[in-house]
Amino acid sequence: MAALRSLLASRLAVTPLFALRPVLLPLPLSGLAATPRAALHASAPRPGTRVALVLSGCGVYDGTELHEASSILVHLSRGGAEVQIFAPDISQMHVIDHTKGQPSEGETRNVLTESARIARGKITDLAKLRAADHDAAIFPGGFGAAKNLSTFAVDGKDCRVDRDVERVLKEFHQAGKPIGLCCIAPVLAAKVLSGVEVTVGHEQEEGGRWPYAGTAEAIKALGAKHCVKEVTEAHVDRKNKVVTTPAFMCDTALHHVYDGTGAMVREVLELARK
Amino acid sequence: MAALRSLLASRLAVTPLFALRPVLLPLPLSGLAATPRAALHASAPRPGTRVALVLSGCGVYDGTELHEASSILVHLSRGGAEVQIFAPDISQMHVIDHTKGQPSEGETRNVLTESARIARGKITDLAKLRAADHDAAIFPGGFGAAKNLSTFAVDGKDCRVDRDVERVLKEFHQAGKPIGLCCIAPVLAAKVLSGVEVTVGHEQEEGGRWPYAGTAEAIKALGAKHCVKEVTEAHVDRKNKVVTTPAFMCDTALHHVYDGTGAMVREVLELARK
Repeated sequence: MAALRSLLASRLAVTPLFALRPVLLPLPLSGLAATPRAALHASAPRPGTRVALVLSGCGVYDGTELHEASSILVHLSRGGAEVQIFAPDISQMHVIDHTKGQPSEGETRNVLTESARIARGKITDLAKLRAADHDAAIFPGGFGAAKNLSTFAVDGKDCRVDRDVERVLKEFHQAGKPIGLCCIAPVLAAKVLSGVEVTVGHEQEEGGRWPYAGTAEAIKALGAKHCVKEVTEAHVDRKNKVVTTPAFMCDTALHHVYDGTGAMVREVLELARK
Repeated sequence: MAALRSLLASRLAVTPLFALRPVLLPLPLSGLAATPRAALHASAPRPGTRVALVLSGCGVYDGTELHEASSILVHLSRGGAEVQIFAPDISQMHVIDHTKGQPSEGETRNVLTESARIARGKITDLAKLRAADHDAAIFPGGFGAAKNLSTFAVDGKDCRVDRDVERVLKEFHQAGKPIGLCCIAPVLAAKVLSGVEVTVGHEQEEGGRWPYAGTAEAIKALGAKHCVKEVTEAHVDRKNKVVTTPAFMCDTALHHVYDGTGAMVREVLELARK
């Protein structure tokens, strides 16, 4: 509530008292959430699987694909997970005007700050994420995974992965804790975890249904094994405990992406409980 | 694809050819979507109910509550609706740093441009929305409904509603076409449509579960009737064809908000087919 009081004091001190409640409206969790973990899951009935969600901004062209993130959070919520959301405190590669698909020249945004829009304000610097504090980690897709969490969008198979992202992937992997990734995010695992199995969907474009099918070749060039899957399915690498789903790699209706992330989340939670 | 080619030309012309596919990745609909309508629903099997979704930015504190918007879009997708997304081409009231809950001084953002992050680039100026072209309209919540689509956050019951928002609400209402609203957005209907029935949840705070229960009084002061509902329910004003659900007015887990928006969407689609 401190932040809100400050907001009110700084901007709305002259407003009618009547108006104060409405101003607070979309922050219903602020009074309850003593820790970032509770942000979207205040009423989980029992201590659930502790899942770290790693974001890369807010918006498909320069950050996290927010529908993937939101779908994942709905499935985690229904599964009773305790979620804590993280993002790196770094500048975005660039800001894309999403009405034009072009860079907004002269504008800069911070990955952590923009990711907080998805997290409803409850977010932690990725530098503080330790596998010891969680049972699983999940990475949604969107350009941000290839632009902010790695340089894959520019460098392809020669990409570098953000230092904390690499550390986190290795920590969870070495601890035998499951990692979920969707859309283009599986390239992060393919780069960091030697010989991992992942899916980015189909390997042929099939008349436009899989417009970026060539990404499967990039996965292989990174030393990983690519496994063909449908958009509503998840691939489970049981040895490495890595779960992936194509999501928006497929040109399809949103509810199929929702269902695919659901399959991924269920497999991650099941692996985490073993 | 034109926008993407331009993006590539302007920023990535020197990147390895290999990298071009990954750059395109999270835009799988760009090749198919000849019209904005198809943006998130490319594979709807038949012409469905035509729904206009009206956004107010991207992020709970200063725009659309993106989880509400995403949930609504998943339910519309599963219901086979043809969705076209709109937002007003106006400046946001302010930009909130979502990590702090405080205004980001000196920064300005445009409601249409930021809403395009939720719309994955396929969005139309609200000024062009005509009820004649659609079967229903839906307004998600978030601070944006009370800051950008109206002045409710500052002026309470004395608020003004954006001219195009008021026009759109009246057009759909007069045409007998259903309108769905959630979270704080029902205040828009309460202000514009005389005597309408809406819900913003419960009327008592109940230990923090309904932190903004006082909003029900504001609804009444605006001349509307308030109907108590649970977060997973929708209230249907059959006479006015207005459907509302509390969404994040309730301090609860995300999947309950998802289910409540689902109830709202199903009622809207059913009313639209009558």
